[in-house]
Amino acid sequence: MSTELKGAPVAAAINERSQKELRHLAEADIVSTLAIVRVGAREDDLAYESGAVKRCEKVGVAVSLISLPESVTQDELLKNIYELNNAPSVHGVLILMPLPKQLDGEAVRQALSPEKDVDGITDGSLAGVFTGSGRGFAPCTAQACIEILDHYGIDCKGKRAVVIGRSLVVGKPVAMLLMAKHATVTVCHTRSVDMPSITQNAEILIAAAGKARAIGSEYLSENQVVIDVGINFSDGVMCGDVDFDAALPIVSAITPVPGGVGTVTTSVLVNHVVEAAKRQNKM
Amino acid sequence: MSTELKGAPVAAAINERSQKELRHLAEADIVSTLAIVRVGAREDDLAYESGAVKRCEKVGVAVSLISLPESVTQDELLKNIYELNNAPSVHGVLILMPLPKQLDGEAVRQALSPEKDVDGITDGSLAGVFTGSGRGFAPCTAQACIEILDHYGIDCKGKRAVVIGRSLVVGKPVAMLLMAKHATVTVCHTRSVDMPSITQNAEILIAAAGKARAIGSEYLSENQVVIDVGINFSDGVMCGDVDFDAALPIVSAITPVPGGVGTVTTSVLVNHVVEAAKRQNKM
Repeated sequence: MSTELKGAPVAAAINERSQKELRHLAEADIVSTLAIVRVGAREDDLAYESGAVKRCEKVGVAVSLISLPESVTQDELLKNIYELNNAPSVHGVLILMPLPKQLDGEAVRQALSPEKDVDGITDGSLAGVFTGSGRGFAPCTAQACIEILDHYGIDCKGKRAVVIGRSLVVGKPVAMLLMAKHATVTVCHTRSVDMPSITQNAEILIAAAGKARAIGSEYLSENQVVIDVGINFSDGVMCGDVDFDAALPIVSAITPVPGGVGTVTTSVLVNHVVEAAKRQNKM
Repeated sequence: MSTELKGAPVAAAINERSQKELRHLAEADIVSTLAIVRVGAREDDLAYESGAVKRCEKVGVAVSLISLPESVTQDELLKNIYELNNAPSVHGVLILMPLPKQLDGEAVRQALSPEKDVDGITDGSLAGVFTGSGRGFAPCTAQACIEILDHYGIDCKGKRAVVIGRSLVVGKPVAMLLMAKHATVTVCHTRSVDMPSITQNAEILIAAAGKARAIGSEYLSENQVVIDVGINFSDGVMCGDVDFDAALPIVSAITPVPGGVGTVTTSVLVNHVVEAAKRQNKM
């Protein structure tokens, strides 16, 4: 029977780290501030925003909400981003994605100042993840996977880690973060042939396929640590990419959905805002 | 018995592509130009420089050599780089690395304009490789591996590719380029445990370990395509990372050293200069 790697204690430990830093910043009269840019009112965006706002308030980070109509033009949106880049009181900016179709998401990504890019969407942040230079910030979800492994004392060094998915939000960056922790990393994706034979061989398995319960028992083996990044809805019930009930009797440890990676992501975001405030004030 | 994947025909095909583009550029009175910046006179640097100059001359790309004394200061070196960034007649800049110890190589890397970074050393180019956006240029050696696979009709889609080495010059970028070609990619390195069991399972094996003949028969299996990136000297003889004599009776195809990847690298460099000239002139 597996151990459940719950997100809540991981989030609590990150929040505690953040709060310690916030006390230092407060002594220098700095109020760490996150600006959230939302275009339109997609349900996903509203849910994520509400979670992020609550987490910020709980930890002690100020939030500035910029809500733009779905019909906003590229120029208006970019003008907002430039203003946030230049606002000394704003330390981190989260742009909720994807943007409506009339907007050039790529241009918007690159318009954001890498110093304020707390969710790792700019080339500056992604180059930092790729090179391991420590510049910029890793995408929060990718970082959350690593925080969970660290918190539960799972050493990556020399381990066979397999990542399912090659997105820029999770798959590729988490592969780089695992490599920096000296894991032997394999990235599988939709074009991979006989994926179960590859994933069964993993000691650490990161599922970021984006398909409800797609990873069944045939993908799994004993002694695996499984981090399930998926957030899907099946018949109105939230579930991960891994078939949790099938995995539980097989693997050594697994994150639940809900209550796993998703619980940690906003704590990572808040921690990035605090870190950004420190860097911008050379503390 | 393996097929030898020789570099010369690959280089010739790339040169031909470059020359076709050069004719278009010449019609618009544009002389594609590479600037090479060398600090000091390390033997490795002189050898690579001489190879690059010859290849440029052969294909029809102009070269501007900037040779600086080993004692050059950071400021003087940066001044030279800024001048090259701003020189409209220079399309690509190659800075021979590593630099002498008194210089901050990282700051020099980032000073180069990504548009002229034909060997993929800046964060701008590396982000392009990581995201697959096509911005910037991949490091030439990593790109040379892909050119060899393409030239010999080796389809990467769905194949298990294993890269030995995680440097920013070869390992990591070639892993990303293979992933973009839909291979299932694993990166091994010095901390990997039981590497032979992983590499034996590869259909495409890229050896970039930097150790003379370190990859022996126990790492190899039938039906593998092996790309040997290593350039080492053992008892005065140039050899790769793979024990070529041991590999020849086992694997399906292998690049020789010398005469393999190294032969292709400077042709890729020249091609990048041509491509940079096209982009800078919006052609």
